[in-house]
Amino acid sequence: MFTLKKYVAPDFSSERFTNCPDALFVPAPADFVAPDNYHATTVFPEYFLIGGKWLLVEDSRMDSVVTYRDGKLYATEFRHLRKGDLVCVGRTEEGQEGIFVHTDGFTEEKEESQAFAFRQNRSRETSMSREYDELYDLLRHEKEHGNICWVLGPACAFDYDARRTFARLVEEGYVSSLLAGNALATHDLEAAYLKTALGQDIYTRHNVFNGHYHHLDTINTVRKYGSIPSFIENEHINDGIICSCVKNKVPFVLVGSIRDDGPLPEVYPNVYAGQDAMRDCVRKATTVICMATTLHSIATGNMTPSFRVIDGTVRQVYFYAVDISEFAVNKLTDRGSLTSRGIVTNVQDFVFNVGRGLGLL
Amino acid sequence: MFTLKKYVAPDFSSERFTNCPDALFVPAPADFVAPDNYHATTVFPEYFLIGGKWLLVEDSRMDSVVTYRDGKLYATEFRHLRKGDLVCVGRTEEGQEGIFVHTDGFTEEKEESQAFAFRQNRSRETSMSREYDELYDLLRHEKEHGNICWVLGPACAFDYDARRTFARLVEEGYVSSLLAGNALATHDLEAAYLKTALGQDIYTRHNVFNGHYHHLDTINTVRKYGSIPSFIENEHINDGIICSCVKNKVPFVLVGSIRDDGPLPEVYPNVYAGQDAMRDCVRKATTVICMATTLHSIATGNMTPSFRVIDGTVRQVYFYAVDISEFAVNKLTDRGSLTSRGIVTNVQDFVFNVGRGLGLL
Amino acid sequence: MFTLKKYVAPDFSSERFTNCPDALFVPAPADFVAPDNYHATTVFPEYFLIGGKWLLVEDSRMDSVVTYRDGKLYATEFRHLRKGDLVCVGRTEEGQEGIFVHTDGFTEEKEESQAFAFRQNRSRETSMSREYDELYDLLRHEKEHGNICWVLGPACAFDYDARRTFARLVEEGYVSSLLAGNALATHDLEAAYLKTALGQDIYTRHNVFNGHYHHLDTINTVRKYGSIPSFIENEHINDGIICSCVKNKVPFVLVGSIRDDGPLPEVYPNVYAGQDAMRDCVRKATTVICMATTLHSIATGNMTPSFRVIDGTVRQVYFYAVDISEFAVNKLTDRGSLTSRGIVTNVQDFVFNVGRGLGLL
Amino acid sequence: MFTLKKYVAPDFSSERFTNCPDALFVPAPADFVAPDNYHATTVFPEYFLIGGKWLLVEDSRMDSVVTYRDGKLYATEFRHLRKGDLVCVGRTEEGQEGIFVHTDGFTEEKEESQAFAFRQNRSRETSMSREYDELYDLLRHEKEHGNICWVLGPACAFDYDARRTFARLVEEGYVSSLLAGNALATHDLEAAYLKTALGQDIYTRHNVFNGHYHHLDTINTVRKYGSIPSFIENEHINDGIICSCVKNKVPFVLVGSIRDDGPLPEVYPNVYAGQDAMRDCVRKATTVICMATTLHSIATGNMTPSFRVIDGTVRQVYFYAVDISEFAVNKLTDRGSLTSRGIVTNVQDFVFNVGRGLGLL
Repeated sequence: MFTLKKYVAPDFSSERFTNCPDALFVPAPADFVAPDNYHATTVFPEYFLIGGKWLLVEDSRMDSVVTYRDGKLYATEFRHLRKGDLVCVGRTEEGQEGIFVHTDGFTEEKEESQAFAFRQNRSRETSMSREYDELYDLLRHEKEHGNICWVLGPACAFDYDARRTFARLVEEGYVSSLLAGNALATHDLEAAYLKTALGQDIYTRHNVFNGHYHHLDTINTVRKYGSIPSFIENEHINDGIICSCVKNKVPFVLVGSIRDDGPLPEVYPNVYAGQDAMRDCVRKATTVICMATTLHSIATGNMTPSFRVIDGTVRQVYFYAVDISEFAVNKLTDRGSLTSRGIVTNVQDFVFNVGRGLGLL
Repeated sequence: MFTLKKYVAPDFSSERFTNCPDALFVPAPADFVAPDNYHATTVFPEYFLIGGKWLLVEDSRMDSVVTYRDGKLYATEFRHLRKGDLVCVGRTEEGQEGIFVHTDGFTEEKEESQAFAFRQNRSRETSMSREYDELYDLLRHEKEHGNICWVLGPACAFDYDARRTFARLVEEGYVSSLLAGNALATHDLEAAYLKTALGQDIYTRHNVFNGHYHHLDTINTVRKYGSIPSFIENEHINDGIICSCVKNKVPFVLVGSIRDDGPLPEVYPNVYAGQDAMRDCVRKATTVICMATTLHSIATGNMTPSFRVIDGTVRQVYFYAVDISEFAVNKLTDRGSLTSRGIVTNVQDFVFNVGRGLGLL
Repeated sequence: MFTLKKYVAPDFSSERFTNCPDALFVPAPADFVAPDNYHATTVFPEYFLIGGKWLLVEDSRMDSVVTYRDGKLYATEFRHLRKGDLVCVGRTEEGQEGIFVHTDGFTEEKEESQAFAFRQNRSRETSMSREYDELYDLLRHEKEHGNICWVLGPACAFDYDARRTFARLVEEGYVSSLLAGNALATHDLEAAYLKTALGQDIYTRHNVFNGHYHHLDTINTVRKYGSIPSFIENEHINDGIICSCVKNKVPFVLVGSIRDDGPLPEVYPNVYAGQDAMRDCVRKATTVICMATTLHSIATGNMTPSFRVIDGTVRQVYFYAVDISEFAVNKLTDRGSLTSRGIVTNVQDFVFNVGRGLGLL
Repeated sequence: MFTLKKYVAPDFSSERFTNCPDALFVPAPADFVAPDNYHATTVFPEYFLIGGKWLLVEDSRMDSVVTYRDGKLYATEFRHLRKGDLVCVGRTEEGQEGIFVHTDGFTEEKEESQAFAFRQNRSRETSMSREYDELYDLLRHEKEHGNICWVLGPACAFDYDARRTFARLVEEGYVSSLLAGNALATHDLEAAYLKTALGQDIYTRHNVFNGHYHHLDTINTVRKYGSIPSFIENEHINDGIICSCVKNKVPFVLVGSIRDDGPLPEVYPNVYAGQDAMRDCVRKATTVICMATTLHSIATGNMTPSFRVIDGTVRQVYFYAVDISEFAVNKLTDRGSLTSRGIVTNVQDFVFNVGRGLGLL
């Protein structure tokens, strides 16, 4: 059984907050341009004193400005600023300028501090048993009460069991949305259509004759049908990550990158429009799991706050980064949030483990 | 002194080519869609028999189709295909269908083959002395007779000496074009404008107060001026990678990705338009050097053939991948081309080495 | 069901072998010194023509010399050479000097060769499903008919489930011998004795007060009892890797290294005596599985041939290298033997997977 | 110019120390066994109250016990304990049991603490310019006033320029001692004797015929002469790391490991005797630089304290870990000592940089 930690809101009646001034808002001087001294958001809950009331930015993200419109606060990307938008200014975080960044709303009891401790970062030598057990409990909880957003790199599509397992996760309701790139979708569809991954038999791993044509053939055929769903229907595709999303009506967002072949018709060519579509998924997510993609994981991490407001209540958002590279994992969990977890392993093993841990295999 | 290897063109008068049929071209059935059995290009020179004459695709790249228009052949990306374009079909490479892929035009004398050899891949344990010496000779040659395209990841902007050295390379004519992303440009301009890298003093590496605002402040200020050149002029920016490109009129292409803040005004939001702009630079390049960016390096590698036709003569294109990750380096040099070289090291050291090797520091 | 590939012995009656001279043996000029032009062994079966008969070195290893004594051939380490030992000389491998290195006794059918293929090395992007299925079949086969030697790095002892699973493998007969260092044994015993790994609670991963004393306390207590079995008995140790080996009478060899604390009483301080003890285990092994230790894995790889002679029949030896570092895995599988397999993943996941795949959990 | 930070000794006259009891010493109950509750040392200066006087363990190291003999304190490895030795007990560090661990004797001014900071660990993205400049100053200082111990992995011998540069460092007095393994020495001597590294031409990197014999031939020839100096003299060896040490009478310690071929005659087969020989070098060192060897670097790190007492004055010991793997570097600099520095790069570039920075090339 999984229990969410209770959120401890700031006690704004306490003395330290008595003399805080109202937060200051200044109009954006031009489209895309914030006023000097703008305040930038973090992953934490942030409150702004407006007319004597502390208002929370409910739907936050990192590195945005805070705009005020019709009595409500928004975490707005710089590129969405329009001339005249009211933007909060001030770079103190303890109330001095009417801005309070609440860094310890979900604080765990501290471990006893010691002069000497061995390990700071997640590495290949970090034990994972409890990590996995907690994750299974969390996923079961989120399936019923939350929203699970998965972020997948291409390696997730290169393994027979990983594809099969992820499809089971989709079918059983453990996937609320999927964020990925052209490569993940292409290789997953290649596996379903031609039974290869980058030209190798998906199961035996032997090179197939002219197999290096397979990903191009797959894209070209999807292009011929005009869309992934039409391709799936007409070619009687039955297995894999994307197919299970389509069949189970799980939304997926594919955003382009400069290394793409093709691309598939559903891919966003404009990466900032793609960011917006990704954030639309993330806004609903209460758990985010990123696997084997530094690019997409960091992008998603930037737009994922440590909390979510649901029916007026603040709850934690869980963020997992799973990668075989310690560099990638530590980069993602260096976000100052207790709810970020890193797991250093092969994502194929990870997915398979999760599938078995949840009893789906 | 650097000597280019001579290109040995195929001897099409030899017996093996006597009975080859003409290559077959079929109209594209729809926009973006190639006909079945299309031929896809490689990094090698490829010849197509048309009206009894073997024609070379002069300006090739990987994973494109070959189109024929007005007596000339083009390596065309699938996304640029329009209904009715004539596309070559056939997947044999030895002339059987009028298609000849010339894999050994620059072949080096083979090393004696042995049953047992220790090392296949580039790794941290590969000796680099000769590599560097050859590179210095190559760069001196290319400065006079070629075109050097550099592809840079953000790590290149995080070091005081690396930025300074790269600027010297630009000033001395060793940089013909620069391909990068929003992050490289942002951090380089942050260093020039606020003397920090990701909020740390660029030289002493101490954290600066509110330093995590610096990259956002930099972008916001550039946005205020409307362009990088205007920012450079108005803020009297004097140093760094981008500044030296602007001042020395070296073209640079910045293409967006989903992890971008901002972005800077010059950044392409559409990654496929960005690919086209990158390829426009690569078309002129005779040497390409990629540093510390898997994403941009692979993208560039995909569009870089192993040869270039200059005044009717075929010459080699050199391609270097420099990264601290063996995974990234091997991924890039696994391209089947003798002219791909990998160097496993910290790019800051690499740039500094190159600067000293060329006598610029 | 697992089927061993049949060994195809060289056909010494064929014409190519008709004029081979006898192999030449020269006495070692001094202790530890081989004569000039000595022949060095590989991982392959090697035959030597003696008195008109081709004799196999039955118990081979890499980088040894071949000595002849009492009608039999031995792969002898240089350090075991004594003045006067008869050492084979000659560095050709096709019979020219009476030496034949049989590189393709177990050759698989070749995949069709192609001009272009994507992937050469094992990496995080290599599919693993079939790998695992084959491994389960192999282990079930070897449990009945073979001998499985495991080589473990310390990371194997840092995880609750991995320790538990490995103990199950021992109990169920999947472990014939264990090779490791002082650290693996120390951390495994620390986990059993004090329930921590490097001072962190083995299950919850929280730092324990003065936990950095735990590995030293463990060693000191074992030292007090004089041996690991006595420690296990007196302290009522009940779980873990070493404990299960002791209780199930599975031999383990622990060899020292310069980074050791302690060491535990069973550890070989002399690394070459340790090599001999390791080779005594390896001589019986038909499958070797190395996990998370570059040092011990390479050492074991050096002494593991690709074949074993059992009751006069030559059979394959399987060699697995499992590590999260591609560098380590590729270094190990670059041995020129088809029977070397690499798996790039977290060993904790790997062990857990194997336990479940074999139905032990 | 380099200035050592001044050591700020604890002020034992201050109130907090007034009621400390004398430290307690208990006889070791058996050879190799410490009494319960023994105190284990750290890298920091540690003081023990004896007869009302605070005594410093002058020649400390990590993870040893503290013994008292003839009025002096010693950091003694467990394996050197003999029955009856007086061993300090107590695991508090603030004087409560007469033990004071002085963690901030060289404390730098703290950076202003902030809620948010990007980077904690050393990575490929850490700027290195200042690092190098400080290192050059330090080395010039240590050449005159200190003692520089270098710890080298085999990769240091695989590059033409790196070997040449290290030899220059030796000749110019920048190397006081060298710690390494059999492989470093073997490959360095192979390069000097046969001009190859693992069978590849050391300069051109082409495979040489039967090159895989070269390291064995080198060891065998050294064995024939009986010692490295005799080999160098008789084979007229003139270049490289080991040769320059021999010719300039720089002591080197080579310690064995289980992956060794050979070994060379000078190699310690007993790793604990090897540890003692290493510590004899480290005892004199004021700067330690470890390159490209996790095993030897960690071993050396364990026996290197953060300070040294010279003529009665406490000074800092500098410890550098240089490796291409962030995992290795972070593992080494996670030691709680301000004087540990990590540099993530290819050691060949590092050595070459250092040689040029010191004006030796």
